[in-house]
Amino acid sequence: MSESRMLRLGAFMRPISIHTAAWRYPGGTPDANFNWPLIKRLTQKLEHGKFDAFFMADHLAVPNMPTDALKRSATVTSFAPMTLLPALAAVTERIGLIATMSTTYNAPYHVARLFASLDHLSGGRAAWNIVTSTNPYEALNFGLKEHLEHDERYRRAREFYDVVTGLWDSWADDAFIRDVDSGVYSDPAKLHVLDHQGKYFSARGPLNVARPVQGWPVIVQAGQSDAGRQLAGETAEMVFSGVSDIATAQRVYADIKARAQAVGRNPDHIVIMPGAFVVVGDTAAEARAKKTRLDSLVHPDSGLGTLSVQLGVDASKFDLDGPLPDDLPPTNASHTSRQKLVDMARNDKLTVRQLAQYVGGAFGTLEMIGTAAMIADQMQAWLESRACDGFNVMFPYLPGGLDDFVDQVVPELQRRGLFRRDYEGTTLREHLGLPRPANRFF
Amino acid sequence: MSESRMLRLGAFMRPISIHTAAWRYPGGTPDANFNWPLIKRLTQKLEHGKFDAFFMADHLAVPNMPTDALKRSATVTSFAPMTLLPALAAVTERIGLIATMSTTYNAPYHVARLFASLDHLSGGRAAWNIVTSTNPYEALNFGLKEHLEHDERYRRAREFYDVVTGLWDSWADDAFIRDVDSGVYSDPAKLHVLDHQGKYFSARGPLNVARPVQGWPVIVQAGQSDAGRQLAGETAEMVFSGVSDIATAQRVYADIKARAQAVGRNPDHIVIMPGAFVVVGDTAAEARAKKTRLDSLVHPDSGLGTLSVQLGVDASKFDLDGPLPDDLPPTNASHTSRQKLVDMARNDKLTVRQLAQYVGGAFGTLEMIGTAAMIADQMQAWLESRACDGFNVMFPYLPGGLDDFVDQVVPELQRRGLFRRDYEGTTLREHLGLPRPANRFF
Repeated sequence: MSESRMLRLGAFMRPISIHTAAWRYPGGTPDANFNWPLIKRLTQKLEHGKFDAFFMADHLAVPNMPTDALKRSATVTSFAPMTLLPALAAVTERIGLIATMSTTYNAPYHVARLFASLDHLSGGRAAWNIVTSTNPYEALNFGLKEHLEHDERYRRAREFYDVVTGLWDSWADDAFIRDVDSGVYSDPAKLHVLDHQGKYFSARGPLNVARPVQGWPVIVQAGQSDAGRQLAGETAEMVFSGVSDIATAQRVYADIKARAQAVGRNPDHIVIMPGAFVVVGDTAAEARAKKTRLDSLVHPDSGLGTLSVQLGVDASKFDLDGPLPDDLPPTNASHTSRQKLVDMARNDKLTVRQLAQYVGGAFGTLEMIGTAAMIADQMQAWLESRACDGFNVMFPYLPGGLDDFVDQVVPELQRRGLFRRDYEGTTLREHLGLPRPANRFF
Repeated sequence: MSESRMLRLGAFMRPISIHTAAWRYPGGTPDANFNWPLIKRLTQKLEHGKFDAFFMADHLAVPNMPTDALKRSATVTSFAPMTLLPALAAVTERIGLIATMSTTYNAPYHVARLFASLDHLSGGRAAWNIVTSTNPYEALNFGLKEHLEHDERYRRAREFYDVVTGLWDSWADDAFIRDVDSGVYSDPAKLHVLDHQGKYFSARGPLNVARPVQGWPVIVQAGQSDAGRQLAGETAEMVFSGVSDIATAQRVYADIKARAQAVGRNPDHIVIMPGAFVVVGDTAAEARAKKTRLDSLVHPDSGLGTLSVQLGVDASKFDLDGPLPDDLPPTNASHTSRQKLVDMARNDKLTVRQLAQYVGGAFGTLEMIGTAAMIADQMQAWLESRACDGFNVMFPYLPGGLDDFVDQVVPELQRRGLFRRDYEGTTLREHLGLPRPANRFF
């Protein structure tokens, strides 16, 4: 079966590059985060490259960075996913549109409604990336004194998902008759009032949007902790995994698919797509030189900021030339990202400064740096060894890094029969090989 | 000065016609509420007609109609304003985009962010229609047992406005330096942390969106009660007023402008635009015949549904051929709409059935039915007698009713020098003659 498996490709956008120094790179676009004409062009280019989806991360706060890092960040302000993605839907035809929305600081009715509306607007291309939020400053923007405890956030997320999917099923697919002669618009027997009363939420329903084109927008998850993987196994249809070596990736892949199977799901109906930071060059040396150039443009202060966010503690107070202290205070930030950094600092004997520079550049994610053929080799190896079903590609700078990928790597993958030459269907579910969910009430 | 005043024109959309029977009208579009290509074309047509804005109403629930009315409603499901308007921004250049968002069932941080993002995306064309929500079913969708009391909703709305506008001022207009050489993206001295702690909300800020293109998106209000008009006088820059005769309109106009002046505002910086249901014909008789035809397509059950919503009580339980009972139970629905219906039923000696048919057709709003010249006469008379600064036009059916207005009434208004022949500026503030607000912190 592995011969016939095809790669899935998402473009992981912020909406601009994930790399801190992208805006400073020669030929980069300093104002990309509010540059609608550029983002429109880039998304149309991704569609030209037959990408499965444009994937937009999100935060509900200016991150809790020290001022010295904040002033160097190009991404502390940007479009909101839920205004950018409808606009992109209007100027594209096929590419999927994944928006992040938090289950911690939203009401299920709003989330159900916005994604259903986006799915109608885009003709079935919407996906919801469920996050529980990790930044403590987000709580302060929404009237809470502190961030919810980690496992509590996941229990809340699970109920949130139940409410949202229940609301999507408010109307049968054939509820709308629109009989001009009789004047009957909808069939009352095909309308379900959810009347959810749970631990965290109550919501009567029905949703004031017809059932989405895809039945449900695609469910995406990126949580890496035990609770996150379990939620993914139970609910996700696409998983963004943060793995950087093939052995770990295989383990995570098998684990999530097993969790899906354990709750009675078909493991083929959950596609696992690690984030991959990709730098393309005409030669391996040129690609490596681009990456070195890019990292050299990261100011040490920026790395300290990101490091502080990921550790959940102000790292600028540590001795920069000493090791990471062993006695980090407890945090409600993402446990997995933090532990990975702690392990890396210990194993590679990094100083806080070195750790900051590493984090400022690469975010500890999988990197693919080389020629189009080398990158295709690496992607093929991961796919064929069941370390993944595809990748969420991150571009080093814009527009060049994205253009290089679409112009060079995509054709190479197509030549090898690993990636589509054209879209087979019109919906994101069709691109990803996912079934359309039945309506639980009809 | 009245000679030089120009009409402002908004298109009040649901996103489809406000008339219950619009979808049944010959040549109408039964599926208009989820027909993106049609809505796109209609909005482009409005822009061709130099309309100031596309104005989208909203509800956060399937309304509490009896089933017999619900099954006849074409608008109980539709796009969400905050997904439709960004999409429209992407396919238009100049027309303003007014989205309704409730202060009762949203968090200020989300609202500030979505409108700021839409304003950037559209190049300064966003407006926020502040509503406090009137439908009791909305409460049930958001975890509340009952709707908030009327005046409490308005106190909450006022604080909500303070938080939202404060968040829009988080960044100075020139906060973003983007100095590639030094690697400094923003000036920390030009970032303000709001740290709002109030009766209803606490929100730290700063907003994670740069200051909107317009400084603040335009503030719109439609509340007609005393509390509603006071909020409008204090905060609104455009008022959608629900008046149907010129004398009342003049009184409301003077009252709202006086309230604005009393709090130190320039009364020219609040434009008052009644809703106007307009039916255009080649002759007066043809226009009247269109309206009669349209009303004849309203099923009595539909009128009863709308009447029930507006009275806040199930009107189908009343004797249809008797008068409206004097002892209506208390309600938290809009007080003004309800009283208007009660007065009309008493003054015109209408049965419940007759009231239902009236409501089902015209919604008790200002009607203009006639030739383009007659409609222009009426609009001119209202403008020149200071009954309004313009109108929020409602079309009887789509696309015909809208096309007729743009093709026939707009040119007549232009010939008379009452309406622009082209946009003078690029932002909605410029269209409406409103100043760009200074940043309160910088």
